[in-house]
Amino acid sequence: MNAKLLDIKKKYISGEIKSQNLESVIFIQVYGADPENIREACNDAAYVRCEAVEEATGASLDIIKNTRLDNCSLVGGDRILAGIEGKIGAATIPMGIAGPVKINGQFVDEKVYIPLATNEAALVAGVQRGIKAINMAGGLNTLVHFDGMTRAPLIEAPNIAEARRFCRQILTDKVLFKELAVLSRDPFVRLEQIDPYQLGTKVFLRMTFKTGDAMGMNGVTKASADITRGILAKMPQWKLITISSNLCSDKKSSHINVLNGRGKSIQTEVFIPDEVLKAVFKKGVNARSVEKTVFHKCYLGSCYSGTIAGFNVNAANAVAAFYAATGQDLAHVISSSSCFVQADAAEGGVHFMVSLPCMELATIGGGTMFGTAREALRLIGCGGFGKSVDDNVNVLRLAEIAATAVTALELNTACAQAAGYEMADSHVKLARGEEA
Amino acid sequence: MNAKLLDIKKKYISGEIKSQNLESVIFIQVYGADPENIREACNDAAYVRCEAVEEATGASLDIIKNTRLDNCSLVGGDRILAGIEGKIGAATIPMGIAGPVKINGQFVDEKVYIPLATNEAALVAGVQRGIKAINMAGGLNTLVHFDGMTRAPLIEAPNIAEARRFCRQILTDKVLFKELAVLSRDPFVRLEQIDPYQLGTKVFLRMTFKTGDAMGMNGVTKASADITRGILAKMPQWKLITISSNLCSDKKSSHINVLNGRGKSIQTEVFIPDEVLKAVFKKGVNARSVEKTVFHKCYLGSCYSGTIAGFNVNAANAVAAFYAATGQDLAHVISSSSCFVQADAAEGGVHFMVSLPCMELATIGGGTMFGTAREALRLIGCGGFGKSVDDNVNVLRLAEIAATAVTALELNTACAQAAGYEMADSHVKLARGEEA
Amino acid sequence: MNAKLLDIKKKYISGEIKSQNLESVIFIQVYGADPENIREACNDAAYVRCEAVEEATGASLDIIKNTRLDNCSLVGGDRILAGIEGKIGAATIPMGIAGPVKINGQFVDEKVYIPLATNEAALVAGVQRGIKAINMAGGLNTLVHFDGMTRAPLIEAPNIAEARRFCRQILTDKVLFKELAVLSRDPFVRLEQIDPYQLGTKVFLRMTFKTGDAMGMNGVTKASADITRGILAKMPQWKLITISSNLCSDKKSSHINVLNGRGKSIQTEVFIPDEVLKAVFKKGVNARSVEKTVFHKCYLGSCYSGTIAGFNVNAANAVAAFYAATGQDLAHVISSSSCFVQADAAEGGVHFMVSLPCMELATIGGGTMFGTAREALRLIGCGGFGKSVDDNVNVLRLAEIAATAVTALELNTACAQAAGYEMADSHVKLARGEEA
Amino acid sequence: MNAKLLDIKKKYISGEIKSQNLESVIFIQVYGADPENIREACNDAAYVRCEAVEEATGASLDIIKNTRLDNCSLVGGDRILAGIEGKIGAATIPMGIAGPVKINGQFVDEKVYIPLATNEAALVAGVQRGIKAINMAGGLNTLVHFDGMTRAPLIEAPNIAEARRFCRQILTDKVLFKELAVLSRDPFVRLEQIDPYQLGTKVFLRMTFKTGDAMGMNGVTKASADITRGILAKMPQWKLITISSNLCSDKKSSHINVLNGRGKSIQTEVFIPDEVLKAVFKKGVNARSVEKTVFHKCYLGSCYSGTIAGFNVNAANAVAAFYAATGQDLAHVISSSSCFVQADAAEGGVHFMVSLPCMELATIGGGTMFGTAREALRLIGCGGFGKSVDDNVNVLRLAEIAATAVTALELNTACAQAAGYEMADSHVKLARGEEA
Repeated sequence: MNAKLLDIKKKYISGEIKSQNLESVIFIQVYGADPENIREACNDAAYVRCEAVEEATGASLDIIKNTRLDNCSLVGGDRILAGIEGKIGAATIPMGIAGPVKINGQFVDEKVYIPLATNEAALVAGVQRGIKAINMAGGLNTLVHFDGMTRAPLIEAPNIAEARRFCRQILTDKVLFKELAVLSRDPFVRLEQIDPYQLGTKVFLRMTFKTGDAMGMNGVTKASADITRGILAKMPQWKLITISSNLCSDKKSSHINVLNGRGKSIQTEVFIPDEVLKAVFKKGVNARSVEKTVFHKCYLGSCYSGTIAGFNVNAANAVAAFYAATGQDLAHVISSSSCFVQADAAEGGVHFMVSLPCMELATIGGGTMFGTAREALRLIGCGGFGKSVDDNVNVLRLAEIAATAVTALELNTACAQAAGYEMADSHVKLARGEEA
Repeated sequence: MNAKLLDIKKKYISGEIKSQNLESVIFIQVYGADPENIREACNDAAYVRCEAVEEATGASLDIIKNTRLDNCSLVGGDRILAGIEGKIGAATIPMGIAGPVKINGQFVDEKVYIPLATNEAALVAGVQRGIKAINMAGGLNTLVHFDGMTRAPLIEAPNIAEARRFCRQILTDKVLFKELAVLSRDPFVRLEQIDPYQLGTKVFLRMTFKTGDAMGMNGVTKASADITRGILAKMPQWKLITISSNLCSDKKSSHINVLNGRGKSIQTEVFIPDEVLKAVFKKGVNARSVEKTVFHKCYLGSCYSGTIAGFNVNAANAVAAFYAATGQDLAHVISSSSCFVQADAAEGGVHFMVSLPCMELATIGGGTMFGTAREALRLIGCGGFGKSVDDNVNVLRLAEIAATAVTALELNTACAQAAGYEMADSHVKLARGEEA
Repeated sequence: MNAKLLDIKKKYISGEIKSQNLESVIFIQVYGADPENIREACNDAAYVRCEAVEEATGASLDIIKNTRLDNCSLVGGDRILAGIEGKIGAATIPMGIAGPVKINGQFVDEKVYIPLATNEAALVAGVQRGIKAINMAGGLNTLVHFDGMTRAPLIEAPNIAEARRFCRQILTDKVLFKELAVLSRDPFVRLEQIDPYQLGTKVFLRMTFKTGDAMGMNGVTKASADITRGILAKMPQWKLITISSNLCSDKKSSHINVLNGRGKSIQTEVFIPDEVLKAVFKKGVNARSVEKTVFHKCYLGSCYSGTIAGFNVNAANAVAAFYAATGQDLAHVISSSSCFVQADAAEGGVHFMVSLPCMELATIGGGTMFGTAREALRLIGCGGFGKSVDDNVNVLRLAEIAATAVTALELNTACAQAAGYEMADSHVKLARGEEA
Repeated sequence: MNAKLLDIKKKYISGEIKSQNLESVIFIQVYGADPENIREACNDAAYVRCEAVEEATGASLDIIKNTRLDNCSLVGGDRILAGIEGKIGAATIPMGIAGPVKINGQFVDEKVYIPLATNEAALVAGVQRGIKAINMAGGLNTLVHFDGMTRAPLIEAPNIAEARRFCRQILTDKVLFKELAVLSRDPFVRLEQIDPYQLGTKVFLRMTFKTGDAMGMNGVTKASADITRGILAKMPQWKLITISSNLCSDKKSSHINVLNGRGKSIQTEVFIPDEVLKAVFKKGVNARSVEKTVFHKCYLGSCYSGTIAGFNVNAANAVAAFYAATGQDLAHVISSSSCFVQADAAEGGVHFMVSLPCMELATIGGGTMFGTAREALRLIGCGGFGKSVDDNVNVLRLAEIAATAVTALELNTACAQAAGYEMADSHVKLARGEEA
């Protein structure tokens, strides 16, 4: 660490330089505000913060300190935005690769690799075994049938009749709708629909937007705030309660997302012939045993547990690993893991299906823009983003690949459990370094 | 890449070397099985896989290829276990730091930093603002009141009467319980309780284990399989349906986890005086407006949405970021984000409380053992692990810190929403590089 | 019992006369098929069945045997339909009356009595006390904002793409919709909307109908079966799974009914001034204590219990009693009791609101057509039925009155609980014959 | 109406006599307080109320006015308690009878008739057809495996640590438990268990009681209030929030009741051989088609609808009809209809099972004590009540019979739906007077 940096560190520790200014100060003072050096300045700032914390706590942050990211950007000439506040480096999560898997989708019709970042042994191997069966069966059919991001401001009417009147107006007054739609000035955030829900004088306006290749939460929050301002400006007796009422629902298990969709709704299917089941999985695995396992575990057990859309074997494992690898918002694992799996025993095999009603995904924005995530997205052909809000084949393709990862793992683990104790055994074996 | 490695790569691409053997082959052939070089061999294997994928797809994986991890281990002399299968490197997620925050807990009584790995702007700043208010109020009270990991095998009786008989026996026969408990041979996985649930002839045995500082899922799966084998050995007319029935419930939103607990159940509270609210948050934020916002958003809205324990503002953001930073299983974000927040307006301020009934956490095992996560755990004083199943102060401390992160963010965002449009505005400002 | 009847009884007991023919045989043989005597024949049949059961069991059915109903009708000349099969008489449930209560509704703007059939002491008194407060506050505002009966057949496509195609067609093809709508030949059952929901190859068609003053379940079942036949006739590769898939949802707690409405959705509100609270309820009851009680009981407690729309104090008591009095289908108490109550403490009093999203109601059909229920309906001005499917002011009025009964009881019991131990005490007092 | 009564009516209409005194005034003034005439006085009072309402509204209440009940009792010498307040007579609901059905239960081992009060055509016929299949299959196995009534007061601690301390004490301090148990002075209400649930400073005490043959709600409310008073007397810093917190949960759909039981938990099973399916039901009905129908309707459809324990075909119909016939609390139809049905296709037939986790039932108290309900209870051998809280074979027998009614209807309707359009057709046929 050079003298300038040491001095800056001292001032940072003393509080003379505030944390949110650290990147910019280094950029200016150490690098003379040369745009070539943004990344360096940003990594230096993380380094300084690490050292400050090390000195304060006595802990060593060697590995964190030496991670390097490239997610800073310059605003207003000499001000650096570090992606997140208080950045000290990066967390690293092991990434494995499964595939390639044949997908017969709307936006993918080829063999694709699947990157998965996880600490869980057996996960990548599980996806790989599911892929083996899928490929032998001719590939996985996929489709996306809903695409929209939601936010639900909550406003309050002076009385129930006025609340009722407005709810009806929102549903029928096309002029008003257009007027509100233009209040979203971001061309990548287009209002599609407003569904009003009334409880007494409280009106929840669940707004659905198209957001191109972005997941869209931030743009949608801004747009719905602007639209709500516009609505309330017309109705002085009404009041804002909150711009986000949990009827969205963002980052909570929620049945409204399952029923009405949020992000993308995706369906997949594959017919696994008996001989493929026999070739890929253990003794005892057949169409009927898989069907029964799915019923007992994913329905009877889940129903008894009291779940919202947890009607699957272990969808969340695939979702979390795929999301971590591709830079998605990890808090979206909750809603995005909502999943119904079906295994219908039929003549000659099992018809295996997965429904994912509310996967929140992006190929632009947040963590998707840089580093390992950007590479992982490019690897699977989803690295770009469209030029208009309607041009979002990147994220639709991503959705189909995400659903494929889930289906491969579901198929594998359903079959593992249909084989009895196999699941427990295979974890142990893999943990011991034996083949499962 | 040296000649040996190039040759190995060729064989790997041709299929001559299988993916699961790649680490070991490199270790032996390139490094002469010298234990000093495990890490190198492992990183070489990831490198080789990356290159193979690059060649197959034309994509560049430069950044991934150059991430380096140290999560391999040697088994049986010359066999390397790479942590996960098909490893190509690591995903990196920006890590920020908030704090220090004063915690008045059972296992923490000091000021602690909070590492958060996230791509979401405003998250770290939000936690920091919450911490500011908490510190001004004298710190956060925390406690852990449940500690247990669960698995629920599902077995089938020949008839309902026999199912009933056995359920009663499991609850009352202490000799049987002891007999079963010893079937778990892992000293860090101790059977504490078996709760039987009957639906017709099907008996779900929800088993609760103490697992020391480990999250425990793998050990518990193994133990419950062994115990189930032991049970079925005594009752030849019964059948195994599945060793994991979703009544556990693992990685699904589930009310049984909320009611009965899973992992750790944690409570926090802080009384924020009016003057602190005024000093830290925007105009319009006061005890009553925070109470009302919490009611309308976290209860009225969440209830209407149909949720399982999504009675909070944005707990999942803090959980996901803290989990990514500290090497937890990211699929556990689902259940671990189950959260009830309360804001009781009282004389002189607001009594703010957070309940987290089912946080699944570890300081040993999986991703907690190495790299940035290990450092992050050490930073917060949770880097060790106990010598017996009962000695798990590390993970209990971790639970209190995790709950603190959630509470700080909940407090901040509840207040932001009580201030009206602030939430939308602050995201925009932070994204623009302005201070929120 | 005359000789003819005795002889018939003998034949009935011996099985010579089947139960479903008993009414008709008596009508013909005892009454010479004289239409004047339908009721007598029907009551004789019930009597005969009672005696047969008495002889078989030794039990006395004196009271049942002497109940008399008038719900038979003549079909096809000499065949009597007894309303239900195997009729032995009637169950009697005590009926009380509360009111009159001032309703300021869309379909009621007057003071109305409320008939309530129940065995629960304190219920009528509770409604009466709620009414007292409502009347002092100027009456209750009510409105109905949804009106539709649903059924959801489930059909299966050959693959997910075909399922997807059809779902889209159902939403957009207006010609198809009209074609399907005319398949409902009952003029009082008009198809309004079909919402398709896809899970894999399975398509749930949630159909919404207008059903005039009828609750409509039977007509809607017939119509949706006919429409489904029409759909499947066009698509020979598809299959019927079930004409009623539980996505309706009929007679189960169900969040889809809460979100999307079923039967009638109703809102009520009343502002109870502080002085009214003071005058009508116990010490300690004030706007703030009522708000807090409602939050803790109806939200915090209900949320923890894991409920679907049980966000109320005791709505089901009023619903069940009103339904029993007015001849509604008592199995509909489940969905119809879905209820959100709100109590907002404000300047000068409490704004009390009730939302009932899915009340299934009728003024024609089933139990509403005769006897005590018909009288109860006439008493409240809902005894008629409209001449067309759109003319259903009777049932809309009924809905507002039903919601009034619920609101009066909710207000009363919320206040009783805000007063501390009062609820327990008043039950005891009323049971002892003291005034509560 | 005699002169005395006319005079009383005048005074009642003028308000000189209050409604709650009407029975007593008539008893004294018309009947000289002769205990022989309680019933007459009570029915006169109902008659007077009817006439008063008729005069006020112009409606005719002829049938109601002439219903006669015998549910009054004398308290304190000359004070009459009319069962409910404001009584005007009775509601009558048609009652049919199905059976006899062979039950192989713990408390029934014989053929039993099933009384059902309903307005729904096809219901009794449906139960009867289910019984036919059950009897041909050798009868229904039944058992009761939980018996307890719950109430959950909610109290507030000064802080979370104190809340935690008390929760632990309640679970471990046997002396305290005994001390609290004796606070319930009703010998028919015995405290069995207290389960504490903590959310912040709020502690829900879910208390479970044995209540003999009574459903027990009133006794349990009283007892839990007394126990709560006892608890709070020891802890002056704590506060009562409500004596009934909805964690009970009474008369709301609630997952805690499903998981932990409330009232009685009951299981039934019957193995229906293929030839019985063939003989009793339509073409197309076989073990596999019934299994598939149950999966798609009762699980896939119900899961998508978002339900609490609505995993059945139409359990609520049987529950409501049986409850109306036997004098149960009709608001309990909600929780009592919680039902999981299973149909496992097996070698030679279908294993049909029903689980009813929370049926609230009584053979003493409320509506079970008199009139048609008392007779219906006696008819099925449940007319008595035990001499101690532990002697409750009457209500346990009742529970098994109730579950039998549900199972018979579930079996019938599952098979009807497995036959395709049959359900719609049979309703139409029965409504037309044809045999279904």
